[in-house]
Amino acid sequence: MNTERLKQQMEFIVEVDKVKNIFRQTYLADGNRKENDAEHSWHLALMAVILKEYSEEEVDLAKVIPMVLIHDLVEIDAGDTYAYDTAGAATKRAREEKAADRIFGLLPDDQGKNFRNLWEEFEAYETSDAKFAHLLDNCQPLLLNDASDGISWSEHQVKKSQIYKRNEHIPETSGEIWEYMKALIEKHVGLGHVIDDMND
Amino acid sequence: MNTERLKQQMEFIVEVDKVKNIFRQTYLADGNRKENDAEHSWHLALMAVILKEYSEEEVDLAKVIPMVLIHDLVEIDAGDTYAYDTAGAATKRAREEKAADRIFGLLPDDQGKNFRNLWEEFEAYETSDAKFAHLLDNCQPLLLNDASDGISWSEHQVKKSQIYKRNEHIPETSGEIWEYMKALIEKHVGLGHVIDDMND
Repeated sequence: MNTERLKQQMEFIVEVDKVKNIFRQTYLADGNRKENDAEHSWHLALMAVILKEYSEEEVDLAKVIPMVLIHDLVEIDAGDTYAYDTAGAATKRAREEKAADRIFGLLPDDQGKNFRNLWEEFEAYETSDAKFAHLLDNCQPLLLNDASDGISWSEHQVKKSQIYKRNEHIPETSGEIWEYMKALIEKHVGLGHVIDDMND
Repeated sequence: MNTERLKQQMEFIVEVDKVKNIFRQTYLADGNRKENDAEHSWHLALMAVILKEYSEEEVDLAKVIPMVLIHDLVEIDAGDTYAYDTAGAATKRAREEKAADRIFGLLPDDQGKNFRNLWEEFEAYETSDAKFAHLLDNCQPLLLNDASDGISWSEHQVKKSQIYKRNEHIPETSGEIWEYMKALIEKHVGLGHVIDDMND
C-alpha cells in the first residue's frame, strides 16, 4: 500500500477543480452565461463516444477521452486564450508549457508523463486521435454558438475567413461532420452574426 | 450518408447542455459556489482514469467513463436529489425513469439503448464497473467537502451514520480509497462539521 502515491493523486484531483473557474468565450446553449473548461471538457468526452463513428481514420477512445478531459488543464495557470485572439496566441505556448510542468508534475511520475504526452499529442495535431479531439473541440462551441444565436461571434466580430481557417483540417477528419458544421456557419453568416469577408 | 442520424446525435448533444444548469449541494473546492452536474461528471471521468488501479475487481474504463459521463443526465428533467434527502429519494426512481425515456430517446436507437443500459447498470449498483462508478461518485464530493471546510455537511446537518451508510459498499470496491475517505470523514467529525451520532 503506497499512501504517498494515493495522496499525490488525490491532491491533483482537488487542484484541477480550479478549471471549473476558467471561463471561455462561448455561451451555454441557453445564452445565459459563459461556459467553463470543466463543462466544455465533459461535453467533448461525451461527444467522443457519440460521434466516433464519423472519424475517417480509426480512433482510440481510450486515448481520445483522457486527452479531451485534460486538454484545458494548463489554462488553470495560463488562462483561456480565445480562438481568435492573435496577441494571446503569440505567448500561449510558453505560458502553457510552464503550466503543464507544474500541473502534470503534481501526479506520480508515470501518470504525469502520460497526461503530458496526451497534451503534447493534442497540441501537435498530427495523429488521428488528436485530429478527432480537435474536431470535437471546434465543433462543440459551434453547436453552442448556433443554439445561443451567435452572440459570442457577434461580440467578437468574428469573420467567416477566421472560422474557415481554424477548421481547415476538419474536412479530412470527418467529411460528414464538416458538412454539418459548414451549414451552421453559413446560416450565421446569412444572419449577420459572422462577418462575411469571403465573397467579394 | 445518414444525415437524419447525425441530426439526432447533434440535437442530443445540444439538449444535454442543460445539465450545466443542474446544481448540486456540493461546493467547489474553493467554497465560492455550488458545483453543477457537468462539472461533477467531468471530474468523475478524470478520476476514473487516475484511480482505476485501486479497484479490487477488474474494471473496464470503456464502460465506466461513458457511465459517469451520462449518469446524471436524467436530472435535466428530474432535478438533483440530495444524497441525504429521504423525502426526495422516495419519488426519485419514478421521476428519473421518465426522464431517461425522454432524454436517451432523443438519440438513434442503438446509442440511446446503450446509454440507457449504462444508466440502469449504474443505478443497480451490482457490477464491478457500477461499483467503481459509485466509488467515484461518492469520493469526489467528499474531496470537495474537505477542501471547502465541510460547509455542505454543516448546512445540511449531516450525521456520521448517514455518511457511513451511504458508503457501505466502498470498502469492498477499494480498501485503500476507503481508508483515505474514512480519514477525511473522521477529520470533519472531529472539526464538528459532521454530527457524531455513532459514539454513545
